[in-house]
Amino acid sequence: MALSVNNRFSRIAGNMKRSAIRELLKLTQQPDIISFAGGLPSPESFPVEDLQEIMVQVLKEHGAEALQYGTTEGDVHLRELLLERMRKEGVQAGMENLVISTASQQGLDLMGKIFLDPGDVVICGSPSYLGGISAFSAYGARLTGIPFDDQGMRLDELYSVLKELKDEGRKAKFIYVIPDFQNPAGITLPEARRRRILELAEEFDLLVLEDSPYREIRFEGQPQPMMKALDTSGRVITLGTFSKIFVPGFRLGWVIGHEKIIEKFVMAKQTADLCTPVFLQKVAAAYLDSGHFEKNLARTVDLYREKRDLMLEGFRKHMPEGVTWTEPEGGLFLFMTLPSWMNAEKLLREAIVHKVAFVAGNVFFADNGGKNTIRINFSYASKEENKEGVERLAEVIRGEMKNHG
Amino acid sequence: MALSVNNRFSRIAGNMKRSAIRELLKLTQQPDIISFAGGLPSPESFPVEDLQEIMVQVLKEHGAEALQYGTTEGDVHLRELLLERMRKEGVQAGMENLVISTASQQGLDLMGKIFLDPGDVVICGSPSYLGGISAFSAYGARLTGIPFDDQGMRLDELYSVLKELKDEGRKAKFIYVIPDFQNPAGITLPEARRRRILELAEEFDLLVLEDSPYREIRFEGQPQPMMKALDTSGRVITLGTFSKIFVPGFRLGWVIGHEKIIEKFVMAKQTADLCTPVFLQKVAAAYLDSGHFEKNLARTVDLYREKRDLMLEGFRKHMPEGVTWTEPEGGLFLFMTLPSWMNAEKLLREAIVHKVAFVAGNVFFADNGGKNTIRINFSYASKEENKEGVERLAEVIRGEMKNHG
Repeated sequence: MALSVNNRFSRIAGNMKRSAIRELLKLTQQPDIISFAGGLPSPESFPVEDLQEIMVQVLKEHGAEALQYGTTEGDVHLRELLLERMRKEGVQAGMENLVISTASQQGLDLMGKIFLDPGDVVICGSPSYLGGISAFSAYGARLTGIPFDDQGMRLDELYSVLKELKDEGRKAKFIYVIPDFQNPAGITLPEARRRRILELAEEFDLLVLEDSPYREIRFEGQPQPMMKALDTSGRVITLGTFSKIFVPGFRLGWVIGHEKIIEKFVMAKQTADLCTPVFLQKVAAAYLDSGHFEKNLARTVDLYREKRDLMLEGFRKHMPEGVTWTEPEGGLFLFMTLPSWMNAEKLLREAIVHKVAFVAGNVFFADNGGKNTIRINFSYASKEENKEGVERLAEVIRGEMKNHG
Repeated sequence: MALSVNNRFSRIAGNMKRSAIRELLKLTQQPDIISFAGGLPSPESFPVEDLQEIMVQVLKEHGAEALQYGTTEGDVHLRELLLERMRKEGVQAGMENLVISTASQQGLDLMGKIFLDPGDVVICGSPSYLGGISAFSAYGARLTGIPFDDQGMRLDELYSVLKELKDEGRKAKFIYVIPDFQNPAGITLPEARRRRILELAEEFDLLVLEDSPYREIRFEGQPQPMMKALDTSGRVITLGTFSKIFVPGFRLGWVIGHEKIIEKFVMAKQTADLCTPVFLQKVAAAYLDSGHFEKNLARTVDLYREKRDLMLEGFRKHMPEGVTWTEPEGGLFLFMTLPSWMNAEKLLREAIVHKVAFVAGNVFFADNGGKNTIRINFSYASKEENKEGVERLAEVIRGEMKNHG
């Protein structure tokens, strides 16, 4: 007898949607499509050969311990190394302030789990990272997007939203910020805005979630201080990850925050997956110790800078008037704005016919905006594909313009 | 200014407790304590040398692909191999019925996430696995424990609970069963009871969660059919894991179930951690392909059988009258019942002074029972520790009896 399933699921399950991006990725994995769609690092950046050596070394040195259950908090040596890196960023944190996570996505999910009840408000960028929006929405949060200008989240808009909530006797749980080379906008928040967001968090008594996976992929310009480094009252929770600066396949990240908040993260992680693979943590630590990490990162930054330059050059050469784009100082993405009448989802269908893909920007807007925007990833495609893909994309856009009249 | 944190957390966070066992594990990790407390596999069972070879092989064969993001569903080849193993168990399932999980614990957590709203009833054994109880409780579930006899969950009690719920116009979401060498009781459900539980699930229209991490660690006797193999209507969701039959540190498990339920698991996993490390999935698949897996598993079963025998022999020799224990046909645990006046938590404090540790059984009872029970793990301690630990434990129990007069 066929089982009736649909009426059995929880409210949380009802809030979940298949990620539009991950579904799209399947479509764009056809080998003849040039994909600017995913957020994948370049496979050229993965230190495959170094890792062969280091893995054998870790198994020789640590043997069975590397294959056993580990503590939920994470490998002590890896955590020490991460704290040391954080100190160089001006973040003073101790072991009680850091837990290893199964990459940033787990940090986002557990952030939702430990802070959000149905109806709670989360402030995010408009646009913002889809994986964060989905994680918070699943717990029933109401996402309120703050529009961007060319320096990121607009502070006047942020203030009005917070003020309005306060006047209604409500408040947001936290402000979700991706300060460095934002996904999807490619914009970096200047120090002054970071400071002002923290002041507002203080004034309205909110937490700030700083999600910074691309920070170390900087091509040029001055790094702005981490928000955690500016945090004097313990309001900032920072998510870090090795996904973009080492390898994504290890699923290794970390969460830094107030001791009592990290304690809750640890409890939530116990229930979620007990611990992150010890072996992979020890490999990452050994890779950091070996000195190869910094060399490989520098190589990756050079590679992505070249790819970005190539893409910007292609855009300047081939894109018709009326199309604009951000010029990120780092990271993996840039954001393109099409003429206001153009629908990016429709454009995408056309683009796939022409064997090039991107993500229609509307999925990054909690408030249904951004219908004429697209996110473009420049880290994954090879340089040849980069050139060819830009030409195909420009052609598809020009075609749309011609049809429009 | 010190941040006030406690009033910020979600209802779910309020339902979470630090795992009593994992906290205890820290205490018992002092090197001079003989620990029967954790649920750790023996490090002697880990194929450290084989893995050195296989890891290098996987990196050589798959290169960057093994280090990249993977699909949420999991590595196709590993899933095929698992489906093939399941077919040998009589489980007919296709790719759409199986998702790789970050070990069983993620399966338990996502089971709670996609099915449980606050106040929902889950039926479990009394006793039952703490990691399951915690995962479901976090989502606000009301756990209802069904008492055990020497064959596991009592069917008369199960029927009355289900009937009573029905009479109140309510129903449980699912029955949580650990059918093979149950943690903590060490008991295996006979086929007849498995069939009857499925009949009751049909009659009362419930799902069944079959959690079977130890199934392949059988020392003797006939395997009873998997509940999934007896499932004719798609009501059974089965959690499997490599933690006890290969290595726990890879955090690799799988969930098998109705296509629409697996679809929800995939969505929930997307939000939880995007994917499980591709590299570790490929290593596990290559290890299965190599044929080493079966050999190593047989070696592990032999090792644990020896350890169980040694422990039972020690108990028979040293335990005072009034103490009884289960004699499991497999798995990692046995369950001891002390005289009814004896408090296992108090005994544990005394035991730690005498440098031996176990888990007080009450943590496994959703209904505050089991105060005179203890769970004993026999897989982790070496044979020498096994002997010495049993003597110490018997001495502590005799001491309690003497004090009691």
